[in-house]
Amino acid sequence: MFQKNAKLAILEKGSRIVHKKGFNNTGIKEILNAAGVPKGSFYHYFKNKEDFGLNLLDYYAGFFVERAESVINETDLPPLQRIRRLFSEFLSFFENNGCEMGCPIGNLSQEMGDLSPAFRKKLEEIFIKMRAPLEEGLNEARQKGEIPDSLDTRDTADFIINSWEGAILRMKVQKNAEPLRLFDRMIFKDILYQEI
Amino acid sequence: MFQKNAKLAILEKGSRIVHKKGFNNTGIKEILNAAGVPKGSFYHYFKNKEDFGLNLLDYYAGFFVERAESVINETDLPPLQRIRRLFSEFLSFFENNGCEMGCPIGNLSQEMGDLSPAFRKKLEEIFIKMRAPLEEGLNEARQKGEIPDSLDTRDTADFIINSWEGAILRMKVQKNAEPLRLFDRMIFKDILYQEI
Repeated sequence: MFQKNAKLAILEKGSRIVHKKGFNNTGIKEILNAAGVPKGSFYHYFKNKEDFGLNLLDYYAGFFVERAESVINETDLPPLQRIRRLFSEFLSFFENNGCEMGCPIGNLSQEMGDLSPAFRKKLEEIFIKMRAPLEEGLNEARQKGEIPDSLDTRDTADFIINSWEGAILRMKVQKNAEPLRLFDRMIFKDILYQEI
Repeated sequence: MFQKNAKLAILEKGSRIVHKKGFNNTGIKEILNAAGVPKGSFYHYFKNKEDFGLNLLDYYAGFFVERAESVINETDLPPLQRIRRLFSEFLSFFENNGCEMGCPIGNLSQEMGDLSPAFRKKLEEIFIKMRAPLEEGLNEARQKGEIPDSLDTRDTADFIINSWEGAILRMKVQKNAEPLRLFDRMIFKDILYQEI
């Protein structure tokens, strides 16, 4: 196995196991067995388990940021509709997965936010990265008069992400996507469209 | 020690330890040591650790519901201002505690939502109990013309609670109360007051 592939295999398999079981509850050996790579490979790529966790956070965030940039840069729909479509896509993803496991970034925020300063700092950076494409889409929506000029687009992007994390948390409890549909109705129908 | 006090001592001490360390990471022995009660007492009041956890959820939710009912039934302020004050109080509480640990209900939703059907069911009930005083306050606000008639007050109460949980999650990452202040500004200034 090429080295690049070994690192990716560790992150890919690790991302699924940690998403399901949590970070502290997952052993390195379990990930290496799933990825089919020897122990030495792990310490070649990662200084320790925490360093692996920080790489994993970037890996998870990459999915959201790449998808968000792609959907928000499409021009077939008005900007606000594109942002709404992004969250609809994730809603379908969760619904297709039985509304289980939640958002890996949100889970690790809860689990590690108080325990590891390095995790905390990385999570703080990641939320800012996740906010960026939403802020960009909201700026475009404001330029086109789709949302009130009075709304601060950065604040609104942060509020949308935080509310989304809360909706996913409630989804884990209800085991249905209704909290995500409520998020969609409140944010994109009652709130942002309110004055149009 | 009287029996009623022993049960309460287990819940009180247990609530602090579980809030800090999580449910799976907390041992019964640790709680009994902190509460100063013998092991037999634990199994007198609780069938097992899960049963203790379910009682603990009611104990945590009681704080929120009692405080919410009290604040929302005060009549010195208009109804929407009372709801806002409730969340301001909790904001101060978190700020005074270094923005750590988060909401115990939110933490246990993340930790146990997928692991224990009994926890999941109890959490589902608890969110409905927490929603009730907010819905009542929003109904009063609507009657007094403080919020648009078009808003469904139950949906809005659910959205407020879910967004609050998300704001607390983000607070754990940022280690400051800014996400809670953003929640306050967005919900009570930009959103609910928007059309007034």
